[in-house]
Amino acid sequence: MSLETEYDPDNIFAKIIRGDMPCVKVLETDKILAFMDVFPQSEGHCLVIHKQSQAVNFLDVEPEALSELTAATQEVARAVHYGLNPDGIRIMQFSGARAGQTVFHLHIHVLPVYEGVVVAAHASGKPADAESLEPIAAKIRAALA
Amino acid sequence: MSLETEYDPDNIFAKIIRGDMPCVKVLETDKILAFMDVFPQSEGHCLVIHKQSQAVNFLDVEPEALSELTAATQEVARAVHYGLNPDGIRIMQFSGARAGQTVFHLHIHVLPVYEGVVVAAHASGKPADAESLEPIAAKIRAALA
Repeated sequence: MSLETEYDPDNIFAKIIRGDMPCVKVLETDKILAFMDVFPQSEGHCLVIHKQSQAVNFLDVEPEALSELTAATQEVARAVHYGLNPDGIRIMQFSGARAGQTVFHLHIHVLPVYEGVVVAAHASGKPADAESLEPIAAKIRAALA
Repeated sequence: MSLETEYDPDNIFAKIIRGDMPCVKVLETDKILAFMDVFPQSEGHCLVIHKQSQAVNFLDVEPEALSELTAATQEVARAVHYGLNPDGIRIMQFSGARAGQTVFHLHIHVLPVYEGVVVAAHASGKPADAESLEPIAAKIRAALA
């Protein structure tokens, strides 16, 4: 068994939840935060996290938090669909560094796919700046409303 | 908007649910069926579906069915983890043909990842036969129990 299980309260998503790090928000409730991935694999790539669960990955999240997280992920995926009109959407969760997990606070990827556009590698390249992500997030937020 | 939305009652997962097509089962309840992917991208690759929902993809599934499906997916992922000891697990759902969806009955992939083993391409190559999948499924079922 080689999955990470120890929650580090200083991981970057914990800092984002506390407001100690910035993010470009798509959706926020008392329990859920969705924001733009700063290493977007495609236009509109966003992440959905639970603010109250300290689950590291998909395997160790509590049933209620998992249900809330999944429901919010569907809401975000629908908004990505209606806001950005991609040709498909991938929902992905990586549990464990070997599976591609880079931040050890459970997060679900909502990854729109566009015909003829190659999906970029995960967590690679230069981070996108907030100025370039904000107009995309605005379209998703408008579709949520 | 280019996602498929029409449910075809003769898709292969509907046939599997009805018992008109075989599968190598991992878990079955009145609502959920988990079985081995016949095009495994890695050893232990399985699929989780809801038997009572006619959702085509992640965007159109009813809230209760989504919650049940996700809870079962976690159960299966844990069993894959304990039964096969991979180095990581990817949970994936493809909505729309352009995202990689090939069967239009909502399904969630549980894909174990092993260090040093390349994950095969999706839905490619020759299908695995039941004889080769059964011993792997048996390990997962044993970990579920």
